[in-house]
Amino acid sequence: MAKKIGTQTIRFEKKLSVAAGAAIVGPLEGEGPLSTCFDSILTDDCCGEDSFEKGESMLMQKVYDALLAKARLSSTDIDLFIGGDLLNQIIATSYAVAKYDRPYWGIYNACATFGEALQIGSAALEAGMAKHIIASASSHFSSAERQFRTPLELGSQNAVTAQRTITGGGASLLGVNMGAPYITAITTGIIVDFECNDACDMSTAMAPAAAQTLLTHFRDTKTTFMDYDMVITGDLASIGVDIVSEMMRMEGYETKDHFTDCGLLIYDREKQPITDSGGSGAGCSAAVFNSYILNKLKTKEWNRVLLVPTGALLSSITSYQKRTIPAIAHAVVIENNFQGV
Amino acid sequence: MAKKIGTQTIRFEKKLSVAAGAAIVGPLEGEGPLSTCFDSILTDDCCGEDSFEKGESMLMQKVYDALLAKARLSSTDIDLFIGGDLLNQIIATSYAVAKYDRPYWGIYNACATFGEALQIGSAALEAGMAKHIIASASSHFSSAERQFRTPLELGSQNAVTAQRTITGGGASLLGVNMGAPYITAITTGIIVDFECNDACDMSTAMAPAAAQTLLTHFRDTKTTFMDYDMVITGDLASIGVDIVSEMMRMEGYETKDHFTDCGLLIYDREKQPITDSGGSGAGCSAAVFNSYILNKLKTKEWNRVLLVPTGALLSSITSYQKRTIPAIAHAVVIENNFQGV
Repeated sequence: MAKKIGTQTIRFEKKLSVAAGAAIVGPLEGEGPLSTCFDSILTDDCCGEDSFEKGESMLMQKVYDALLAKARLSSTDIDLFIGGDLLNQIIATSYAVAKYDRPYWGIYNACATFGEALQIGSAALEAGMAKHIIASASSHFSSAERQFRTPLELGSQNAVTAQRTITGGGASLLGVNMGAPYITAITTGIIVDFECNDACDMSTAMAPAAAQTLLTHFRDTKTTFMDYDMVITGDLASIGVDIVSEMMRMEGYETKDHFTDCGLLIYDREKQPITDSGGSGAGCSAAVFNSYILNKLKTKEWNRVLLVPTGALLSSITSYQKRTIPAIAHAVVIENNFQGV
Repeated sequence: MAKKIGTQTIRFEKKLSVAAGAAIVGPLEGEGPLSTCFDSILTDDCCGEDSFEKGESMLMQKVYDALLAKARLSSTDIDLFIGGDLLNQIIATSYAVAKYDRPYWGIYNACATFGEALQIGSAALEAGMAKHIIASASSHFSSAERQFRTPLELGSQNAVTAQRTITGGGASLLGVNMGAPYITAITTGIIVDFECNDACDMSTAMAPAAAQTLLTHFRDTKTTFMDYDMVITGDLASIGVDIVSEMMRMEGYETKDHFTDCGLLIYDREKQPITDSGGSGAGCSAAVFNSYILNKLKTKEWNRVLLVPTGALLSSITSYQKRTIPAIAHAVVIENNFQGV
C-alpha cells in the first residue's frame, strides 16, 4: 500500500513501471535538438485531416499506435486510457481514444496534465485496478493559438515573454513489475496564484507553482536537486526557469546543473528564434519525457529523475474577465532503483 | 487490493465510504421536486459575482464549505480534491479549489465527470494515498448556454429535444472506514459514438453509452436492474431514458420501476415546462446524488444503488466542424452492505 510522506508526497509500495513511451512531434519540433529521440516527426501537422483539431486527435492516435507496437500489445490489452489536452472539452484526446473502445478517464490540469496522468495512473496500478494503463497528453500550436490567443491568419506579433505551444504528444505505458524505470513517488500540486494576469507570459504565472511543488517535495522527501540526476519542469522555458532557480535559491536550494525544463530542451532558441522564450503546451513534457528523458533512464545515463509538469489554469474567458492566472505543478519521481515504501 | 471482474468492472477490497455529501442548486432547481433535499438554494445564481463563470466557482466554494461543515473537517484535513465542470479548461472548479491550498486533480468527462471523480477517488483511497478526498462536479445554466449554444440575450427557441443544463453542484467526502454507504464496485466506461450530430439532442447521443456501460456492468457482476433498489443515470432526461430502456429490453433486461435518471428527478416537467425534456449538466448527477440519493441510502430506504453519470464529449468546435458526438458513461455501485472482493 502507498504511504504518505510529509505533507503532500506519496511513496508507492508496488513496482510501478514506465514500461515504454512514445512521442511524435510536428515539423518545427522535429528540427530541434531532440530530433533523433522522437518516434516520428510529422511532415503535415494536420496529419491529412482538414482541421488542426482533427489533426491533433490523429496525432494522438499515431502516438497510441506507436506505443502499442513498441510494447507489442494490442489495444485490448489496455485496461485504461488516462489523458488530456488543451482544447476546450479536451476533444483532441477524447476523439483519439474513441477509436480504441477501452475504458477512459479524461483529465485536465493545463500543461501539468501529463504529470496528473502519471499520478492517477500510479494510483490505479497501486490499487490493483489495472494491468496496463496508457497515460498521455498532447498540444498543437495551431489549434492552441486560435483558441487561446488570435487566429494565425492575423499574423499578430508575439510578446517577448511568449512561448511556443509545441505540436506534439506523448504517451507512457504503465504497468506493475514490467522493469525499470519505476514511478516511486509523487507530489500532487496545490493551486498557486501569484496574481499574474498576462496571458502572454504564462511562465511567470507558473513559476511559483513549480517552486511550491519542488519545495514541498524536497522537504517531504528530505532531498535536494543534487539527489536527482535531473529535475525537469514541464514548460517554464527561459523566463520561468530563471524565476524558479531564484525562488529556490532564496529557500536555500542551489540548482547547479541539476535543473532544466522540457520547454528549453525541445527547441534551439538561437537557431529557432520563432520559438520565443521556449516551448510550452501539455504535449511538451509528454513528448520530451517519452523520448529524451525515458531514453536516458532506459540507458542508465540517468538513474533518478524528478519530472514536474507545470500548468496555467486560465481560459480565454478568464482573460476577458481580467482574472488572475492560477497555476499548478505535479511532481513525479522516476528512477531505476526501486526501494519501496 | 481491488479485483477486476469480467471485462471492465473493479470491485474494491477496502470499505470506501461516502462519508458525507453536499449539494447546492440555483433558483429554478430549488423550485423542483427535490427542493427539500438540497443543502441550500441560491436566490442569486451569480452568488454576488459579476459573471456567470465567477458565480459557478463561488457556488462550488459554497458546496465545499457546506460539505466541510457537515463533516466537521477543516480544509487542511482534505488530502485531495478531484473535480471538474463543463466550462472550457474547467475554470469553475479550478478557481474554486484554488481557495483551499490542497492537492488537486482536475478531470473532464462532460456530464459523466462526477462518476469519474468517484472512480478516481476510489482508486486513490484503495491505493492508500489519502485519508479524505472531496469528489465534485458542477454546471451552470447561463455559463453553459453561452459557451455551448447561444447567448441568453438572443432568446433563441429551444428544440423539443433540448435539455436544461442545471445550475448546481455537488461534492462527496470519500474516506476509508467512515461508515455506510460504501463504493463497492465501478465500471469505467468506454467511448461510444452512434454518429449523432445534433448538439440540441445530447440524450440520444448519450443513451447508447449508458446502455453499453449498463450492459457491461450487469454481465461483469451477474446482476440486473432488480439487484439494485434503483439504477440512476446522470442526465438522459425523458428521451434518453426511453432509448436506454428500449435498448436494455432488447438485450433481455427489463427496467421495471428500478430505473430513473437525475435529469428527470430534478425538475417537474409539467409544472416547469421551461426545463424541456429534463435536466442535464455535470452538476445534475452531482447535485442529485449528494442530496436525494445519498439521503435515501443514509436512511436505508435504499440499500444498493447503481449511479451512472453520462457525458457527451462534444465541444462548440466539434459542432462547427460537423463532427459526431461521442459519449461515455461511468457506473458506480454505492451500497450499505459491504461484502468486499
